[in-house]
Amino acid sequence: MKRNEPALSERAFFPASRRVATFKITLAYDGTGFVGWQRQATGTSIQGLLEDALRELDGRDVAVAGAGRTDAGVHALGQVASVSLERQIDADTLRRAMNAKLPPAVRVVATEDAPGDFHARFGARAKTYRYRLWNADVISPFERTYAWHVPDALDVERMAAAARLIEGRHDFAAFQAAGSLAKTTVRDIASSRIVPKRSTTEDTEDTDLRILSALCGGELIQYEITGGGFLRHMVRSIVGSLVEVGRGRRAVESLEDAMRSHDRGTVGPTAPAEGLFLVRVVYDVMR
Amino acid sequence: MKRNEPALSERAFFPASRRVATFKITLAYDGTGFVGWQRQATGTSIQGLLEDALRELDGRDVAVAGAGRTDAGVHALGQVASVSLERQIDADTLRRAMNAKLPPAVRVVATEDAPGDFHARFGARAKTYRYRLWNADVISPFERTYAWHVPDALDVERMAAAARLIEGRHDFAAFQAAGSLAKTTVRDIASSRIVPKRSTTEDTEDTDLRILSALCGGELIQYEITGGGFLRHMVRSIVGSLVEVGRGRRAVESLEDAMRSHDRGTVGPTAPAEGLFLVRVVYDVMR
Repeated sequence: MKRNEPALSERAFFPASRRVATFKITLAYDGTGFVGWQRQATGTSIQGLLEDALRELDGRDVAVAGAGRTDAGVHALGQVASVSLERQIDADTLRRAMNAKLPPAVRVVATEDAPGDFHARFGARAKTYRYRLWNADVISPFERTYAWHVPDALDVERMAAAARLIEGRHDFAAFQAAGSLAKTTVRDIASSRIVPKRSTTEDTEDTDLRILSALCGGELIQYEITGGGFLRHMVRSIVGSLVEVGRGRRAVESLEDAMRSHDRGTVGPTAPAEGLFLVRVVYDVMR
Repeated sequence: MKRNEPALSERAFFPASRRVATFKITLAYDGTGFVGWQRQATGTSIQGLLEDALRELDGRDVAVAGAGRTDAGVHALGQVASVSLERQIDADTLRRAMNAKLPPAVRVVATEDAPGDFHARFGARAKTYRYRLWNADVISPFERTYAWHVPDALDVERMAAAARLIEGRHDFAAFQAAGSLAKTTVRDIASSRIVPKRSTTEDTEDTDLRILSALCGGELIQYEITGGGFLRHMVRSIVGSLVEVGRGRRAVESLEDAMRSHDRGTVGPTAPAEGLFLVRVVYDVMR
């Protein structure tokens, strides 16, 4: 979608002296088919969709900041965005108005009034990502854009042990996308775990669809990581290495070696985008 | 896709005297974007995809029969198809070969050898369908093609009471698609229930994605029906009426009146295809 300057008449209608209100917006989106969070020269971005919707509402160009700049194909259950609007609008009306304008793949889950200095990215204390792997010969058709299909045998115990090595303060230079320019590559990871499985067979009859997907003989393996911040492709690089550990192609301790090496060549391939979900973003209690 | 006659050379390669083997094929598919089970003049059908894949394997035209002729947009977790092939192939190789040819939205879950007279449709003893409703102000983006979004308040107790009235032998003439030409409209329904809910909040942290979708404040309501056979649009017409009962727009007993009336005008609107899943098909034990 093209970003137009607001017409002069619209500018005149919203004088610069008007008081602005700041909002915290919680979003869920199915990242399939989008170019990711950030506006790009071509393709549809989540940020672009939000800015287009809010520009229509506010009658002027607005800038939306997002807590996590998710890549193309990455999903969100609890992405957080911040925006300041001149238009007097209450939070719940804003939520409804945005959902009326956005495509069904992008939903505003919640809107809240926020302090004027609230910034979704700079104010974030912690973010949690979840990565979903489908470990069976056949992947359920309902999982094909929401999980990485790994048909090979995986030793989940080894993966769980390797995941724990990521916890703490480490230099993740080896785990960032080639060509990244982050000022520092040291990050604090509060938690890095393989999510314990519950039985997916005992309650096939009366639970939800994804569990019925277990008809396909599927084994869902989930990895969850919480930290103060992440480098580009960091979670997917960690998952790529964990899967190599699970396949027995690399040692559990190799993740420690990779963190010490600062060398991209020492880590596994980057896991595909479709398995990754931004689950939630944590902020200090507001006001 | 176009259905071509096999070339003469291919026919010569597979003489008519060759012994044929019959298979039972269990399928899962995401019905979004397909024209339904049955081949149509235009668009991609599940039957067409299977027949095209099997024609390539068998070197001649093959006819695939399906247990349930699901409509456009309807999904399957356990659809069953039957086919007879001239090529000597074991069941597991057939499954792998078909999955290699089919798009990821259609998966062969299982293949089994079947008696020569096995027919997926005529041999079916019972079929189970599940209908999924999303009853909240906002529908999760991950549910948008797998549930009917009903934002209005619904009285689930009333819906459950009305659902039970469907059980038994009834004339469902009022619940079939306009213009249907079924010989008899009497059907035996073994079970018709609102699926009991389990809590979707208590285990948000460590369960699967659709439960995390509960972040959207969602309330999943599921209806499940098992019977010997169904008329076209019958399940979706029943669900449309159940939702009207839940909204308080019609009496619980109105479903009995509709069954007695034989009049399409006495039932609620047909619920949309995207919420419907063919869950399983039951056969007598083979051989």
